[in-house]
Amino acid sequence: MAVYTAVGDDALTEFLAHYDVGELLSAKGIAEGVENTNYLVRATAGTFILTLYEQRVDAADLPFFLGLMSHLSDRGIAAPRPVARRDGSLLSALCGRPAALVTFLDGLACRRPAPWHCAALGTGLARFHQAAADFAIPRRNALGRDAWAPLFAQSRSEADGVVEGLRALVDEELAALTELWPTGLPDGVIHADLFPDNVFFIARRLSGLIDFYFACNDLLAYDLAVCINAWCFEEDGAFNVTKARALTAGYNAVRPLDEAERAALPVLCRGAALRFLLTRLHDWLRVPEGAMLTPKPPGPYQQRLIFHRSVQRAEEYGIDADPLPVARAV
Amino acid sequence: MAVYTAVGDDALTEFLAHYDVGELLSAKGIAEGVENTNYLVRATAGTFILTLYEQRVDAADLPFFLGLMSHLSDRGIAAPRPVARRDGSLLSALCGRPAALVTFLDGLACRRPAPWHCAALGTGLARFHQAAADFAIPRRNALGRDAWAPLFAQSRSEADGVVEGLRALVDEELAALTELWPTGLPDGVIHADLFPDNVFFIARRLSGLIDFYFACNDLLAYDLAVCINAWCFEEDGAFNVTKARALTAGYNAVRPLDEAERAALPVLCRGAALRFLLTRLHDWLRVPEGAMLTPKPPGPYQQRLIFHRSVQRAEEYGIDADPLPVARAV
Repeated sequence: MAVYTAVGDDALTEFLAHYDVGELLSAKGIAEGVENTNYLVRATAGTFILTLYEQRVDAADLPFFLGLMSHLSDRGIAAPRPVARRDGSLLSALCGRPAALVTFLDGLACRRPAPWHCAALGTGLARFHQAAADFAIPRRNALGRDAWAPLFAQSRSEADGVVEGLRALVDEELAALTELWPTGLPDGVIHADLFPDNVFFIARRLSGLIDFYFACNDLLAYDLAVCINAWCFEEDGAFNVTKARALTAGYNAVRPLDEAERAALPVLCRGAALRFLLTRLHDWLRVPEGAMLTPKPPGPYQQRLIFHRSVQRAEEYGIDADPLPVARAV
Repeated sequence: MAVYTAVGDDALTEFLAHYDVGELLSAKGIAEGVENTNYLVRATAGTFILTLYEQRVDAADLPFFLGLMSHLSDRGIAAPRPVARRDGSLLSALCGRPAALVTFLDGLACRRPAPWHCAALGTGLARFHQAAADFAIPRRNALGRDAWAPLFAQSRSEADGVVEGLRALVDEELAALTELWPTGLPDGVIHADLFPDNVFFIARRLSGLIDFYFACNDLLAYDLAVCINAWCFEEDGAFNVTKARALTAGYNAVRPLDEAERAALPVLCRGAALRFLLTRLHDWLRVPEGAMLTPKPPGPYQQRLIFHRSVQRAEEYGIDADPLPVARAV
């Protein structure tokens, strides 16, 4: 949560003159997003988010990200829609950084996901996968399976200093996943980072998906595995099968997982846990001088990984179970 | 610029249910204000700022601050208007802190004040003084002249380590101002902190005044002296008499300064420079552990103080001069 780049009033007015959004009324730096600087901008034509892309976003990827958001908006997915400049470009520059203006989405991120949030998320994720299916630009998953071993190599010697036994666990897991990783599953554009921060709700319905800056091409069911990790564990580390059941049932109702995807789910969940374990470990060991952000501890993802290793069958995630077992018991 | 208190979605929804503003649509922590936590809140009835008062604000002062904002709004001053709860109260509580909901004001704070900004500020300041004249609740200036010596006592032994020669300068100045400080000038409610951050503009007109959390009763011309310090010096320390001329002319056009106020202006400017010098020095020496804020250096206010000590007559601030000398020369 940070405003990395302070934009002056003159620069902002000049920037907005390239868009057909009327007069600039207000701009507030908002404490949202860990990678970029975001301003909530009000203009006579509406409310927008102005994003300045800081160094962690590769400018070469911006046509993919902005194009995807436009594509999704065109297909009725509640995602921020990039506003085109008068010259037609979705991408601009401000204060020496690539910048874009997107429509503002109302909604609140939930702090403590309830089962109904998870059900709505599952439905929304499946709709997103369907809507993105014909998006033309490809993007490799820079944090996909091939990236995990080289990423770990940068932190391996220090891993046990962070969490006892982490080095051996990850070594073992990298080897195991090389053997077990599924092939031939349906792939497509995935969000790859659909944590509670990135999903908005209003009045018990999903009102928007945001932050597409990790989106890429990968296995669709892997995206569901990311969500199981991000939404279905309690603060004490316990796995909440009721939430997982709601999530997978919501997904299945729109895009039913095939047999191979179901069978692969425990392995995909291990992979997703490992991916966040590795990036958290990396960031934990490299807190920049004077950082305004507290890095997230890797420990919880070690626990989740160990949990997923114990799972034998997809049914343990609640998949194929009746989403309303209480009702059935009546 | 900080969000000190993170408010969960459930707590926020419960909080807003006490107000007649419709459904909660969105809440973004904004990087605004150094004392409190602020959220930009959208609800079906409009856009608001939710403020959680952190420890530096004395809760006993809140009826003054919120009452003043209501009073000003009633009199047509573009200030945030506190929204009353269904039970009539302007003050509420959230996450264990006093909290209030106020209307959102559009506008942009200027980074580099131009003379036209200063002219509009002068007019706005005088209108504020007039509108607040019949506000019933009094509040002592906790950072007024009586507070300066005890405030300096907390930093005196360390002052020379921050700016060479600062201890002797402040000792001398405290003694001099005790002699020189004017008596019998018009007093009333002053803003006391009307820096560029707290004044909004849209399309070359002043659109709002914010942040009344230093407002108090004191000499009206002292408020103008604060503005001269805050708006009329360049980054290199130079005094910009064109801006001061625009500021004082704007003020005089609405509420003409009397002879005694004019004569006192150099001394009031010294006092205002000393007040910000002392609070900056205090904060500079007490940066809290893990602070997200960089304290502002006291040095520039030492320079301003030295400048004001060299001023003999109010005319040197441009007061009584033709506000458009170029036009006169033609």
